[in-house]
Amino acid sequence: MAPLMEDEVFMAFTTYAAIVILKMSLMAPMTAFFRFSRGAFANEEDVALKPSEERKKLLRSHPDVERVRRCHQNDLENIVPFVLVGLLYALTGPELSAALLHFRVFAGSRIFHTIAYVGALPQPSRALSWMIGFLVTISMSYRVLSKVLVL
Amino acid sequence: MAPLMEDEVFMAFTTYAAIVILKMSLMAPMTAFFRFSRGAFANEEDVALKPSEERKKLLRSHPDVERVRRCHQNDLENIVPFVLVGLLYALTGPELSAALLHFRVFAGSRIFHTIAYVGALPQPSRALSWMIGFLVTISMSYRVLSKVLVL
Amino acid sequence: MAPLMEDEVFMAFTTYAAIVILKMSLMAPMTAFFRFSRGAFANEEDVALKPSEERKKLLRSHPDVERVRRCHQNDLENIVPFVLVGLLYALTGPELSAALLHFRVFAGSRIFHTIAYVGALPQPSRALSWMIGFLVTISMSYRVLSKVLVL
Repeated sequence: MAPLMEDEVFMAFTTYAAIVILKMSLMAPMTAFFRFSRGAFANEEDVALKPSEERKKLLRSHPDVERVRRCHQNDLENIVPFVLVGLLYALTGPELSAALLHFRVFAGSRIFHTIAYVGALPQPSRALSWMIGFLVTISMSYRVLSKVLVL
Repeated sequence: MAPLMEDEVFMAFTTYAAIVILKMSLMAPMTAFFRFSRGAFANEEDVALKPSEERKKLLRSHPDVERVRRCHQNDLENIVPFVLVGLLYALTGPELSAALLHFRVFAGSRIFHTIAYVGALPQPSRALSWMIGFLVTISMSYRVLSKVLVL
Repeated sequence: MAPLMEDEVFMAFTTYAAIVILKMSLMAPMTAFFRFSRGAFANEEDVALKPSEERKKLLRSHPDVERVRRCHQNDLENIVPFVLVGLLYALTGPELSAALLHFRVFAGSRIFHTIAYVGALPQPSRALSWMIGFLVTISMSYRVLSKVLVL
């Protein structure tokens, strides 16, 4: 193991980073599931085995598929910055308790965000869960820039 | 602080990585601003509180919202690779002056890219700013692969 | 060079990470090539120099451009998680042979995925190459979480 992996804050970062990246990756099979169950595909080769009269009808977008794709996109826009900034944040040597607070709140907010998005829960549930995750990333960025600033 | 954070090149990388990720993250509130000001939403639950006759009209795409979203997408396609390659590049021990040149040019080019995209400045302002950032990432990748190659 | 760059597993990670990020970045010039050759642009300023009667016709989407863009998006959804999890995986000190197997299979699967997607090869070529890359990332995530778990 690299020496970094003996640092508790870095280990905590590693754990939560792996969890939120796994969560994000699972949006891909979820999109595939909705594409098959709703019959909505994006590529001609994906429907080549269907009877020819059905093919055109299957090359369409479906609201449920688009919803899952927007959720996946939102993960890309939020989870990737969290992991990148979180890595730098963990290297600035924060208190373990402060770091865990950031990581746990972020992971919880993004899991709830997915439930709120895919389940179409009434607003402001999705907006609030997005906002909480966003603020965690901003807070870590602030710590990083206030500890390390070489312009 | 981790020993890495005592290395000046890594501190410079950390600074500019945090700045460009922050810039990218700010595209999300900018999208929200344009969604509200232009009245163009993507989800039914986002317009549930509006009078029912207005709801359908608000579930639409608007050119200004789409423009900000394309800019955000372009950031994802360019800033994320910069941060990932830049991390590896910083670990290969480049000269501080060379590293700072890469990081400053990239950050400047992406900030100008956003202004050119959202402000719809005449081409080739956006194309050139994109190209400059792209070449910085290619240059860092070249350095990484020429210093470290284990296939 | 940072001490990390004397570790063979980390050097192998660095090599393959740079390769797959370069591959992903090359989707942008490929998109530009298809936009120009197919005459399909997204922004008014991109067609401002064309005769005014042609402009509206050029502001359209084209199936070939959309295909390359979906391929780029799929790279973002798969290559970025690979690099992020792969970095953590390399730090957990796996055997060099096991690490190289993961990295090589992933890089090969994503290069083939691009060929299958842009070339519209018959399914399940694209689905299988996607699945192989996906399983590599899951396997590395599993190793990371089984070695390092601080919740």
